[in-house]
Amino acid sequence: MRESEIIELFLRHLKRQGDLPLGDDAGALKLGDRWLVATNDMLVRKTDVPDIMTPEQVGFKAVTMNVSDIASMGARPIGFLFSLGIPGDLDSDYLEGIARGIGEALDFYDLPVLSADTNEADDLIIDGIALGFAERLLTRSGARPGELVCVTGDLGRALAGYLVWKNGLEVSDAVRKTLYEKFLEPKARVEEGVALSRVAGSAIDISDGLAKELHLLAEMSGVGIEVYPERLPIGKGVEDVAGILDLDPVEVALASGEEFELVFTISPENVEFLDFEFSVIGRVVSEREVVMVNKRGRTPIPKLGWEHFEIEVPDNILKPLTVVELAVPRG
Amino acid sequence: MRESEIIELFLRHLKRQGDLPLGDDAGALKLGDRWLVATNDMLVRKTDVPDIMTPEQVGFKAVTMNVSDIASMGARPIGFLFSLGIPGDLDSDYLEGIARGIGEALDFYDLPVLSADTNEADDLIIDGIALGFAERLLTRSGARPGELVCVTGDLGRALAGYLVWKNGLEVSDAVRKTLYEKFLEPKARVEEGVALSRVAGSAIDISDGLAKELHLLAEMSGVGIEVYPERLPIGKGVEDVAGILDLDPVEVALASGEEFELVFTISPENVEFLDFEFSVIGRVVSEREVVMVNKRGRTPIPKLGWEHFEIEVPDNILKPLTVVELAVPRG
Repeated sequence: MRESEIIELFLRHLKRQGDLPLGDDAGALKLGDRWLVATNDMLVRKTDVPDIMTPEQVGFKAVTMNVSDIASMGARPIGFLFSLGIPGDLDSDYLEGIARGIGEALDFYDLPVLSADTNEADDLIIDGIALGFAERLLTRSGARPGELVCVTGDLGRALAGYLVWKNGLEVSDAVRKTLYEKFLEPKARVEEGVALSRVAGSAIDISDGLAKELHLLAEMSGVGIEVYPERLPIGKGVEDVAGILDLDPVEVALASGEEFELVFTISPENVEFLDFEFSVIGRVVSEREVVMVNKRGRTPIPKLGWEHFEIEVPDNILKPLTVVELAVPRG
Repeated sequence: MRESEIIELFLRHLKRQGDLPLGDDAGALKLGDRWLVATNDMLVRKTDVPDIMTPEQVGFKAVTMNVSDIASMGARPIGFLFSLGIPGDLDSDYLEGIARGIGEALDFYDLPVLSADTNEADDLIIDGIALGFAERLLTRSGARPGELVCVTGDLGRALAGYLVWKNGLEVSDAVRKTLYEKFLEPKARVEEGVALSRVAGSAIDISDGLAKELHLLAEMSGVGIEVYPERLPIGKGVEDVAGILDLDPVEVALASGEEFELVFTISPENVEFLDFEFSVIGRVVSEREVVMVNKRGRTPIPKLGWEHFEIEVPDNILKPLTVVELAVPRG
């Protein structure tokens, strides 16, 4: 079964939902004049963890991926919970590394752990849960024609780092360092999310690649999106890797997953209220299509993206690999 | 590694905790004049699900075990989340049964689902998360000498039902029905927990067997507990099964896990405020021991209980089996 089929199957039986229907980065309940936001995301070693990753990085990432979902709702995280599935033969040093990584992430995000649960399981599993509060909820469905489409930070380093590792590419130490930093130690954009909650129209975090997130934003908002490829903030070192592999850096930027950057839409007059760095990469239009616009014309952006279950998963596959495999060839 | 060693290892690295330290049924954060309570509990098919259980019962139980932890904190549940680990070859009818069971439980407890996540994993895993609010928090550390020790409902049917199934015992249909109801379809004591939050001193739900929960209550409160075995509300059918297997029904009642009844302590003058059925089974004393008191004298109650990882786990083991194996012989 595909993940989308599984989700559909569950939605048929889950009639009771929160004050925000399922399908956003996180769920939410209205509590007086603010929103309690909650999300959960399971990390399975076999499918989600490349063997190059240290246990500290695994633990840190289990926190980041959940905190990022809270931030993308415009909420400030207030607590973290986790359940562990631990194989009987797991090395205790590895387990301690995970504990250390979770602890470091909680320090980094200034978050308390509220509850933890351990179990025996066949594969290492960390199910992370994050809670937060938002004054105003930032959803995937709030994009309106005329708004600018923007993104925090830069794009493509997560996938480029993966490609370096997977293909054993020879790159300079500086390039490897900057790529691996994003590939192995991504950070969530908490302050940006909180700041956006007051002024943005919509937001989503980049888990499955910019292209897929743009499609989700457009679909859920009932709008279209135009992207100007020359405006994409392509990360340092991405062009080096794209050059070696004869890939288009723009495509790497569009396909790169687990970046944990925030994509948001905002009306031009609200841009002045943002006090952090970001790039304007396009605009929201009423015609319901997601396209790249440049001198050569308008090119539909394929819904590149990862779906668990869609294909056979080899050992240690990382999400971006699938994205690349599904990507349209350069033209 | 034993579960307790794993927990200790993690506690060394998790310095930031909520407004209630880790170690209770759930975590909690103080929000103005009330408490946000959060808990998570992972269900792994290999270790937690007997093959007699329907997928509907599995789904229902994943909700119940979490709602019970919220109730035992004196909180009213407000939302549920879950992450699924799904083996690639899992039958879609089975999966739909789980979805139906979760949906039925959400109806039963009148709870919305806030967030759901699906992943591929080697074994079927349901990590449930429940959130709730309490006006006053009911912890494991609030028991004070002079209070009565009480329990909701009855005891022992979960383990007796397990023993019937595991040993293929011949019992009457009526006995089997009442035992399997508790063994396969336990319910959380939500209204009782909420009512207790106002008047009880401490509470814990029975996940790992009454004996172990009493030890936890006593340790965390720095007190002792006397139990009067003839006051234990032994469930219908438990004596039949104990008779067949030459077990002491009291021991079955003490060892039976996943009952999801609430054990609580309350001062005698507050008992009149309780408007639900319960049994007084003992009292809190200052001497730090957990003992059974009857005509023959005082007998220490062993810390019967389940610990994942403590022993090798055969296929389809259920928690109560371990408890029985660890139990002291009848004397």
